[in-house]
Amino acid sequence: MSEKSANAMWGGRFSAGPDAIMEAINASIGYDKRLAPQDITGSRAHAAMLAAVGILTKDDAAAIDSGLAQVLAEIEAGEFAFSTALEDIHMNVEARLRDLIGPAAGRLHTARSRNDQVAVDFRMWVRDQCDTAIAGLEALMRAFLTQAEAGADWVMPGFTHLQTAQPVTWGHHMLAYVEMFARDRSRFIDARARMNECPLGAAALAGTSFPIDRHMTAQALGFDRPTANSLDSVSDRDFALEYLSAASICAMHLSRFAEELVIWSSAQFRFVRMSDRFSTGSSIMPQKRNPDAAELLRAKLGRILGATVALFTIMKGLPLTYSKDMQEDKEQVFDAADNLALGLAAMEGMVSDLTANRAALEAAAASGFSTATDLADWLVRELNLPFREAHHVTGSLVKLAEDKGCDLPDLSLTEMQKVHGEITDAVYSVLGVYNSVASRTSYGGTAPDNVRAQIARWKEVLV
Amino acid sequence: MSEKSANAMWGGRFSAGPDAIMEAINASIGYDKRLAPQDITGSRAHAAMLAAVGILTKDDAAAIDSGLAQVLAEIEAGEFAFSTALEDIHMNVEARLRDLIGPAAGRLHTARSRNDQVAVDFRMWVRDQCDTAIAGLEALMRAFLTQAEAGADWVMPGFTHLQTAQPVTWGHHMLAYVEMFARDRSRFIDARARMNECPLGAAALAGTSFPIDRHMTAQALGFDRPTANSLDSVSDRDFALEYLSAASICAMHLSRFAEELVIWSSAQFRFVRMSDRFSTGSSIMPQKRNPDAAELLRAKLGRILGATVALFTIMKGLPLTYSKDMQEDKEQVFDAADNLALGLAAMEGMVSDLTANRAALEAAAASGFSTATDLADWLVRELNLPFREAHHVTGSLVKLAEDKGCDLPDLSLTEMQKVHGEITDAVYSVLGVYNSVASRTSYGGTAPDNVRAQIARWKEVLV
Amino acid sequence: MSEKSANAMWGGRFSAGPDAIMEAINASIGYDKRLAPQDITGSRAHAAMLAAVGILTKDDAAAIDSGLAQVLAEIEAGEFAFSTALEDIHMNVEARLRDLIGPAAGRLHTARSRNDQVAVDFRMWVRDQCDTAIAGLEALMRAFLTQAEAGADWVMPGFTHLQTAQPVTWGHHMLAYVEMFARDRSRFIDARARMNECPLGAAALAGTSFPIDRHMTAQALGFDRPTANSLDSVSDRDFALEYLSAASICAMHLSRFAEELVIWSSAQFRFVRMSDRFSTGSSIMPQKRNPDAAELLRAKLGRILGATVALFTIMKGLPLTYSKDMQEDKEQVFDAADNLALGLAAMEGMVSDLTANRAALEAAAASGFSTATDLADWLVRELNLPFREAHHVTGSLVKLAEDKGCDLPDLSLTEMQKVHGEITDAVYSVLGVYNSVASRTSYGGTAPDNVRAQIARWKEVLV
Amino acid sequence: MSEKSANAMWGGRFSAGPDAIMEAINASIGYDKRLAPQDITGSRAHAAMLAAVGILTKDDAAAIDSGLAQVLAEIEAGEFAFSTALEDIHMNVEARLRDLIGPAAGRLHTARSRNDQVAVDFRMWVRDQCDTAIAGLEALMRAFLTQAEAGADWVMPGFTHLQTAQPVTWGHHMLAYVEMFARDRSRFIDARARMNECPLGAAALAGTSFPIDRHMTAQALGFDRPTANSLDSVSDRDFALEYLSAASICAMHLSRFAEELVIWSSAQFRFVRMSDRFSTGSSIMPQKRNPDAAELLRAKLGRILGATVALFTIMKGLPLTYSKDMQEDKEQVFDAADNLALGLAAMEGMVSDLTANRAALEAAAASGFSTATDLADWLVRELNLPFREAHHVTGSLVKLAEDKGCDLPDLSLTEMQKVHGEITDAVYSVLGVYNSVASRTSYGGTAPDNVRAQIARWKEVLV
Repeated sequence: MSEKSANAMWGGRFSAGPDAIMEAINASIGYDKRLAPQDITGSRAHAAMLAAVGILTKDDAAAIDSGLAQVLAEIEAGEFAFSTALEDIHMNVEARLRDLIGPAAGRLHTARSRNDQVAVDFRMWVRDQCDTAIAGLEALMRAFLTQAEAGADWVMPGFTHLQTAQPVTWGHHMLAYVEMFARDRSRFIDARARMNECPLGAAALAGTSFPIDRHMTAQALGFDRPTANSLDSVSDRDFALEYLSAASICAMHLSRFAEELVIWSSAQFRFVRMSDRFSTGSSIMPQKRNPDAAELLRAKLGRILGATVALFTIMKGLPLTYSKDMQEDKEQVFDAADNLALGLAAMEGMVSDLTANRAALEAAAASGFSTATDLADWLVRELNLPFREAHHVTGSLVKLAEDKGCDLPDLSLTEMQKVHGEITDAVYSVLGVYNSVASRTSYGGTAPDNVRAQIARWKEVLV
Repeated sequence: MSEKSANAMWGGRFSAGPDAIMEAINASIGYDKRLAPQDITGSRAHAAMLAAVGILTKDDAAAIDSGLAQVLAEIEAGEFAFSTALEDIHMNVEARLRDLIGPAAGRLHTARSRNDQVAVDFRMWVRDQCDTAIAGLEALMRAFLTQAEAGADWVMPGFTHLQTAQPVTWGHHMLAYVEMFARDRSRFIDARARMNECPLGAAALAGTSFPIDRHMTAQALGFDRPTANSLDSVSDRDFALEYLSAASICAMHLSRFAEELVIWSSAQFRFVRMSDRFSTGSSIMPQKRNPDAAELLRAKLGRILGATVALFTIMKGLPLTYSKDMQEDKEQVFDAADNLALGLAAMEGMVSDLTANRAALEAAAASGFSTATDLADWLVRELNLPFREAHHVTGSLVKLAEDKGCDLPDLSLTEMQKVHGEITDAVYSVLGVYNSVASRTSYGGTAPDNVRAQIARWKEVLV
Repeated sequence: MSEKSANAMWGGRFSAGPDAIMEAINASIGYDKRLAPQDITGSRAHAAMLAAVGILTKDDAAAIDSGLAQVLAEIEAGEFAFSTALEDIHMNVEARLRDLIGPAAGRLHTARSRNDQVAVDFRMWVRDQCDTAIAGLEALMRAFLTQAEAGADWVMPGFTHLQTAQPVTWGHHMLAYVEMFARDRSRFIDARARMNECPLGAAALAGTSFPIDRHMTAQALGFDRPTANSLDSVSDRDFALEYLSAASICAMHLSRFAEELVIWSSAQFRFVRMSDRFSTGSSIMPQKRNPDAAELLRAKLGRILGATVALFTIMKGLPLTYSKDMQEDKEQVFDAADNLALGLAAMEGMVSDLTANRAALEAAAASGFSTATDLADWLVRELNLPFREAHHVTGSLVKLAEDKGCDLPDLSLTEMQKVHGEITDAVYSVLGVYNSVASRTSYGGTAPDNVRAQIARWKEVLV
Repeated sequence: MSEKSANAMWGGRFSAGPDAIMEAINASIGYDKRLAPQDITGSRAHAAMLAAVGILTKDDAAAIDSGLAQVLAEIEAGEFAFSTALEDIHMNVEARLRDLIGPAAGRLHTARSRNDQVAVDFRMWVRDQCDTAIAGLEALMRAFLTQAEAGADWVMPGFTHLQTAQPVTWGHHMLAYVEMFARDRSRFIDARARMNECPLGAAALAGTSFPIDRHMTAQALGFDRPTANSLDSVSDRDFALEYLSAASICAMHLSRFAEELVIWSSAQFRFVRMSDRFSTGSSIMPQKRNPDAAELLRAKLGRILGATVALFTIMKGLPLTYSKDMQEDKEQVFDAADNLALGLAAMEGMVSDLTANRAALEAAAASGFSTATDLADWLVRELNLPFREAHHVTGSLVKLAEDKGCDLPDLSLTEMQKVHGEITDAVYSVLGVYNSVASRTSYGGTAPDNVRAQIARWKEVLV
């Protein structure tokens, strides 16, 4: 068909042939061929329904069904010759179907248009991506849980402003990401449920006078119900925007742990060792392990957010119903979805392979008077000092230790009592980092017992 | 306290005073004072809980509670002197509380930090904005339903590519937006449910060793439960990003109807007349009614999307837990929420005030051979022509009418039969726009009966 | 090389082989092969310089040069087997060079690293895209000039808020876009000049101790000078961001004329007829000409802005010098540049093919009391009324005409004088649309003579 | 005027009064009052020109001029009562002028409209912001130069992937930012030059029939020339987008050094000490110095990029000429400009106050076999090994040192010669970090002499 003009499809009324520019800007087959499985599945369901309600004969329906099966087989086998002149996946499939089964192919498009056809294809594709994201997130959560279980009671610095603030447990830090990715997962679940309505049967925009059964096709394609308004069905892409928004939030979370991995891998931190698998090295500096994969994951938010901005901008101010602008939706979502899936898999791999440097974590956790807060809390709790006064006393003790070049537990009771006379020997029980984390038993706190309880809870969720 | 340096709060250890630049970039009181009600509500719940578990005496708790009530009253009365030197709403409130009740104020901050305090304040604020958006959307949906009910059977052109494609009903077009805004509403409902966990009690980042009851404060503040991980609680702002994403999608929908209003108000379309209330005029050209409000609504997507991009970019790559970058979250959400609420109210007003020009709509619906699809469908349905052949016949008939300068119903049966001999008199029943819309009875189609059924369904939802 | 691990390059120190995920996320050869011409050109210049300063022997330099020429020939002929295991274009080219010329290939990388290599490759690529954009813009400006020349004195409505405001000339409207695209062109010229410094020789990041001549390579590659700081040279991508920003602004301009084309092509406006080449039709509705290309161009801003946001987000907060995040720069710029070039070409084609409907434009220009402003100005100028009073008188006259159902020139002098007694017969000279546009001779005004003068000015610029 | 309806301005033809929603969404006086100085300056130039060409009498012009001077004085003194009912700054100023000088005020608006008035006001405002940014950048560059001069030969690690790669000098690192900010400066200079055309006199959109002298007003207001097309003059906001784009790139650069400051301030790095002025502390942990200002600066890219996206989205697809959407331009630019100016000032302060920890920098520079590249280069240069073989030898030597637990200079010559027999004593000259940096004398390299030469060059530029 490469000899024929693209607009030949439109009935030969156009006097000028399309030139290369128009073909380049207009044709979508270069990317929408990814929708082939969805397109053919949708067409088969449509044909079956047309036969069930008597619009198609059984013979035609059978010919269409087996013809479409063959087309799909050809595509999956890589034997299908896609034609740019035929513009998009829908026309490519239909043209091949006509080659295979003859004029009956022409009856498939009854009570349907490309507008509802692409809407259902794309929605099924995005729905699949929700499932992919959910599965990827669950695998990633399991990887974090495994890390959390191994190090439920390992201590590390809890940072604010990248400054050591209080000791926390490795398990608790890992579980923080389980929480974030669990919310991401729930966002994809919600998005999937909301988009799971079938636009097929909306026809060009107004519905149809054929006695079609939209509930039948909806059910056949795994949708909860048909959409309720034909104009809306062919006009909106909010489901894609919701997918992209959820993907962007997830990528934001990925970027945060990726940043931690980059910082933790530095010679100055040495908190973790990334596996060879996810690092690259220098041919001459063996200790240099570039956290390439983590850096690439950190960047993925840019890419996915960019796709999100693109689609929002594209959809801005489009009057109803279908406008060609909307053809630009697919590449953005394809790219974002590919990168999200890859990013989740790569992060799962990195987390699974990650080796924590317990000694470095513990040393860092104990430095910088990190239990000063515990001391202040002890003063409030045991001596009943007002919070602000307890802070003042603590600050003085820390200053004393700093001046002496020692840490808080190294101060003698006499020295402490010079700062506040009521301090007793019992204070030393809160000054070590292991005591510190063990004491933070408030719900959601970093105590190892809390960590283990949360791990158990999550394991039940992720069975 | 304006005489004192801002860093005075930090214990006097800083040798250099803050200068104007640092104060300008660091202080948030200029905008976070909007969180005063949430801040004080949160503090009162915290104090009540501290008393309940025995950390505060009843007397101190009572003093704190009445003191905070007075602070709130002063703020609501506009009598509160906010201090930039005190940086933020939390310190402003606490300093005033100390003025009012003395040292007991210092006990309020037990088992709490500014990190979980701002997290709970901001989360309550965003939660309220979800409710505001839901209410605004319901009001807007009602306005569209009223329009739909009035014009359930008025005909208008259904457009693709801003070209007349098929006749549809006004009611159906209005209902398309009801569907869109209903999904927006459901997104805010989901977002609200997901964010409705209470971070209070996460303390600085690690939880606390005080025997606090986080379930009690969570319940008192209307949350479903406390958050499960203290690091996550003070680090993440995904709830704000989810709100912004839902707001952006909603603003996208607003921009689409706004664009339609601008186009429909043009002298060339004259489909609608905007009320004086939402137009501005020219002092010398009385027929000129500038759709200013619609244009401003069209622009709101830009503003809200901009805020969304801002917060995504801000959060990118932040290591756990709290970093000061996150202080930039509030202005973005405040501005987006204000504009969303205003935009929904303005759109509700415009839709309520809108007058459709039925004559212009009907004339446009009937022009351009808009029932050609109906004719083609008739050929398929009644004469059993394959879809593509029916299209060919229809194209020929349209061409014939075009050449004769008439419309499709004006062709004689003889003329039609010259194109295809089996066409019968019955064909005329589908060629009028009212017949056309009445025939599209497939589920979700534009037929007036469908429209009325959908209106009834929505009315039940929105009782 | 597909049997070998990608990390084999790194000296065999990595115990674990890379798996598919890492290869998928890490390898860039899938897209950076587009840099092959730049990479090879850069390498040839580098080799020539190394020979000139005595680091390479003449024989080695000659072997490298002819070997690289052959690699490029193979790539251009489509005969080159790109290897994902070799990660990127640089390693692919170098490996093939070694196949061709043996160990001498290893000397090419002296005093160079992949960091400055990719920096110079990518910069040359972006520089070429500036030239492409400049040429595309000049062609587009010429197309608008041709339209302007044809219709220097055709009248059409000048709109504000899509409401008719004053008559303007077609030529003037076309020239408005010439101005916009001329500024776009000048932005690309500035960006090109700013980026035209050669990073080659910055080596990994610190410069080199080899006695290289960076001015020589800079000159050979068409740069104005070498970059002045090696850290900056391998770290920054601001030149790409500047390119993307200029491209986004240009795409914004394209979106505006695209929107006008969509609206002007509607049945309600009928201001223009798009050529068949850039429209698609309906198989059954011959009058329907979907402005697909215009809609796609309208959407391009989304795509290009998305790429811009992506790269900004990627670059945010990266510490010096090279981080792997920066590998994500290329796909964004490639996609934006491809779409900008295509968009400019498509717009040039559409503008060239565009047919204005003079009758419809003139009729619309004359409607809606569009010369009311001219009347008011006449009252100020001739009767010396204050501006606001002149507006009041004009409003009354328009109201009178509206009530009578006529236009302004149809009012009798007597009728006018009842509103303001000093009005004379001379007023009729300003009430026609042709008089109106002819009178607006202020610099930059819409008068046909102005239009022609501007056309002449632009033709000189674009010789 | 607060009693009167906003639409009263429009001639009393609107039957419905505006309600609170419309006023809230429509009025811009809340923010555009910032344009008061530009508005009044523009009006005074316009009045002077009207008098010069004989449209205004000298008396009227004098009254207008002194009246406007008084209005400005009132505004600057904070004594002006802005009215929301009067919508915007233009109407507020004009109404007050009428109060002051009576009906002559009505003549000021001759040959002008709000469309060109706001265009010139806003353009002057943005032009001023270019100047502000340029001055801020120059001050910041000077601060970096001062740091560079102090530490022209201090050594520190040069990082790639946040892994130590090669030693560099502190001065060289500082100068990298001078280069970046110099390009930012040049972008603002280019943007300023491009936007420096005066739109005043474009009137509503079509120019005017009054014999105005646009060159005179252009010159009076500091513009290079008047704009050449009236439609373009009132329609486009590309100058604001260019400003925002340049601001975003600059904010990207700020975010990178801000990130470095945050990382360098960590307990693990301790490369720098931020001044008290730009840090905040903990009341109980004296060693904790939270780099708040750096974090806030890191976040500013989000905010400024958000504003950029907002305006791009707003402008997308607007037909010519003025649409009300464009009213949303100002708040975005105001916010971005305020934050850019503040960010530049804060960064200048931080850089000026910054104390480098030379010992920590030097220790880090020497660790991790950071001179391995120097060794490899020596092998190439002195022993004429091919680059890849030199890397192999170096890798073996580093491995040997790593196994022995020593650094490269600690290996004996005998040990080295076992790896490669031709190595001589001279190799030790390149293994120290000071030798390393001193040797990198290629143009743009990190050698202290290069650094000093670049400082001298920049000082001349910034005189």
